[in-house]
Amino acid sequence: MSTAAEINDIEEGLAFRPKFDAAGLVTCVATDAATGEVLMVAHMNDEALRKTIASGEAWYFSRSRNALWRKGETSGQTQRVVEMRLDCDQDAVWIRVEQRGAACHTGRRSCFYRKVEAGEGGAQLSFVDAERLFDPKAVYRK
Amino acid sequence: MSTAAEINDIEEGLAFRPKFDAAGLVTCVATDAATGEVLMVAHMNDEALRKTIASGEAWYFSRSRNALWRKGETSGQTQRVVEMRLDCDQDAVWIRVEQRGAACHTGRRSCFYRKVEAGEGGAQLSFVDAERLFDPKAVYRK
Repeated sequence: MSTAAEINDIEEGLAFRPKFDAAGLVTCVATDAATGEVLMVAHMNDEALRKTIASGEAWYFSRSRNALWRKGETSGQTQRVVEMRLDCDQDAVWIRVEQRGAACHTGRRSCFYRKVEAGEGGAQLSFVDAERLFDPKAVYRK
Repeated sequence: MSTAAEINDIEEGLAFRPKFDAAGLVTCVATDAATGEVLMVAHMNDEALRKTIASGEAWYFSRSRNALWRKGETSGQTQRVVEMRLDCDQDAVWIRVEQRGAACHTGRRSCFYRKVEAGEGGAQLSFVDAERLFDPKAVYRK
């Protein structure tokens, strides 16, 4: 448990003290600096966070590949960071980015291309943006 | 590991199959439906997700209190959900909301009230929005 003074430092202070989870990660939300659309939700470890701040390009940590990853290093779909913000308890980061092309590995502009709506037999999805800006099969050749 | 067909179902299908983590949670990003500003990043378990979809009001799961929580139940600062979206691999939710008052427990409109900038001796924070819309001491009386 943190003391009230420690919590106050984290919430009201100007020291950058990101609170990493047990896996050493913070959550990062990337939005389109021009439109406000949420492009993706991913994770950063300490190194990804430092590289992002130093370079002005988004770096993440891939949980599935267990590896540091510069956004766009395979696909060319890079993210230039216009502004980075940190939340009250310093465990989530918001970056406003200029997205080159598509943020999503499916080739779509945003990962959030489907909406959720209540239906008769439970919630259902529908596409709000099905368009692919690149062909993932051509970009991510194995 | 998932097969290619399973991944295709999750990413391209219309079935709502949220992928909860080991703690039974998905990440939820709430943005202001009017301005696109990120208000908060929090978590939902299956029940919070179902209640949010059914009621049109945001419910979350608090990891620190280990409890289901209707946003605004103590503070009155509720969130009406205008649209809910799900990301490609169905482990993150984006809700566009009409926020009553302030989303942050510190009394600020958004939890992301400080920005991060590179400095001489490492990253530094600065306030972009210090204004409190309510007094947390008065609202969260213990």
